[in-house]
Amino acid sequence: MSLVRVHNFSVSLDGFATGEGQRLDAPFGHAGSRLMQWAIGTRTFRAMGLHGDSEASFGVDDAFAGAWGPGIGAEIMGRNKFGPQRGPWENEEWKGWWGENPVFHTPVVVLTHHLRPALEMDGGTTFHFVDAGPAVALEQARALAGGLDVRIGGGAITIRQFLAADLIDHLHVVVVPIILGRGERLWEGLEGLEERFDIEATPSPSGVVHLVGTRRGAR
Amino acid sequence: MSLVRVHNFSVSLDGFATGEGQRLDAPFGHAGSRLMQWAIGTRTFRAMGLHGDSEASFGVDDAFAGAWGPGIGAEIMGRNKFGPQRGPWENEEWKGWWGENPVFHTPVVVLTHHLRPALEMDGGTTFHFVDAGPAVALEQARALAGGLDVRIGGGAITIRQFLAADLIDHLHVVVVPIILGRGERLWEGLEGLEERFDIEATPSPSGVVHLVGTRRGAR
Ligand SMILES: NC(=O)c1ccc[n+]([C@@H]2O[C@H](COP(=O)([O-])OP(=O)(O)OC[C@H]3O[C@@H](n4cnc5c(N)ncnc54)[C@H](OP(=O)(O)O)[C@@H]3O)[C@@H](O)[C@H]2O)c1
Ligand SMILES: NC(=O)c1ccc[n+]([C@@H]2O[C@H](COP(=O)([O-])OP(=O)(O)OC[C@H]3O[C@@H](n4cnc5c(N)ncnc54)[C@H](OP(=O)(O)O)[C@@H]3O)[C@@H](O)[C@H]2O)c1
Repeated sequence: MSLVRVHNFSVSLDGFATGEGQRLDAPFGHAGSRLMQWAIGTRTFRAMGLHGDSEASFGVDDAFAGAWGPGIGAEIMGRNKFGPQRGPWENEEWKGWWGENPVFHTPVVVLTHHLRPALEMDGGTTFHFVDAGPAVALEQARALAGGLDVRIGGGAITIRQFLAADLIDHLHVVVVPIILGRGERLWEGLEGLEERFDIEATPSPSGVVHLVGTRRGAR
Repeated sequence: MSLVRVHNFSVSLDGFATGEGQRLDAPFGHAGSRLMQWAIGTRTFRAMGLHGDSEASFGVDDAFAGAWGPGIGAEIMGRNKFGPQRGPWENEEWKGWWGENPVFHTPVVVLTHHLRPALEMDGGTTFHFVDAGPAVALEQARALAGGLDVRIGGGAITIRQFLAADLIDHLHVVVVPIILGRGERLWEGLEGLEERFDIEATPSPSGVVHLVGTRRGAR
């Protein structure tokens, strides 16, 4: 059975998954790179070419980071993760943050109220722009995933909808010991969520805590 | 030097330290006993007589719980932790949740805008009702503490004020994997707090994560 998975989704102690003021020169707003600092040094993120090529870590952070790819046949992301534009597309030249050969190498469903033609990139990534609720979007992603799992890539607005609809089987959240104070909250509107998940916590020497939630009844 | 310490302060994943609707028959409001479940089984809490006398745990939860008492000469708590009444005291018969011989065995400063006479209990606990900001309240608690440390006992409204004023040296927060959705948030208004603390995380088999923050420069 194809699972729905969240990986490496980083939130501050006060529950924010991104800062305020997302912009072209500040994809996470005032949070800067603090939420993803734990990942930047891992072998997995270096191998994606995202973060230079100095020495890579192989510890527990990398172990979790590396679970991101295997078995995934499609991603669903929100329009704000895709890029900094809001409202009607002023500029369809924007092709995401990830260059001509994005890290996904699978179809990617981008949720948005502002449709535009699918965007075929190098390396197997195609962005499909879809205006739909979580259940229908998941159906479309599954049709594109060739029987493999679907990753919900974020951001918070998107993941919240899938959690609210009880569509997520595996939930890997990284709690980063910072207080962001403002931005987009992951847990909003999800009171009692824990009743649907078994939760395991693993701390890392880097200071973050990896939480893995497995939906009860999910394989 | 006398330190200012927080112990066993429990927050949900979404940052709430108590639920909504605190009442005589629901001290934590809709949160019920979920925030303190990790502590209820420990030897420390059983020894305080708070939670029956079935078999006690001696694991990491108890190790943390037990650090609560030693070296403490006074506690500061908020009026909402002291009891369920709000506004002017309708009833000065209320002597706290803890019976005639409260667990503190030290002077306790209760912050409130509604003063009433000091309340001497059995076993060394005296409740002093004080209307003051954190710095002045701490001065008074120190005067009562005989050179020992001062514990800030909560709730969230109280601890936030001491954190905002940078008066806390040791901060033990227990992150409980539940989503409360509503209540009193601990981290509100504390953006950037992590810059002032070194933070260590220890998970427990019970599912909670113990965070210990040590203020930089504090012994
Ligand atoms: N912490 C992490 O690990 C992590 C991971 C990924 C991304 N991020 C960061 O998170 C931020 C983006 O997250 P976000 O929470 O602001 O937003 P998001 O979830 O990426 O995108 C939300 C937007 O997507 C569109 N959308 C979402 N659901 C829809 C639906 N059902 N139907 C139609 N359109 C829908 C809407 O845009 P329109 O109405 O404008 O179309 C909505 O405003 C970025 O800063 C990114 O860098 C963080
Ligand atoms: N999660 C945990 O580990 C933990 C620990 C302890 C308690 N709790 C729970 O937390 C709840 C209580 O916390 P809370 O955040 O609601 O409130 P709190 O901090 O216990 O008390 C706040 C009240 O104390 C008075 N106060 C606070 N600072 C003051 C100041 N500087 N000057 C004068 N008065 C001041 C005010 O009351 P007035 O204006 O009415 O006088 C204020 O509304 C209870 O449900 C308790 O069971 C949880």
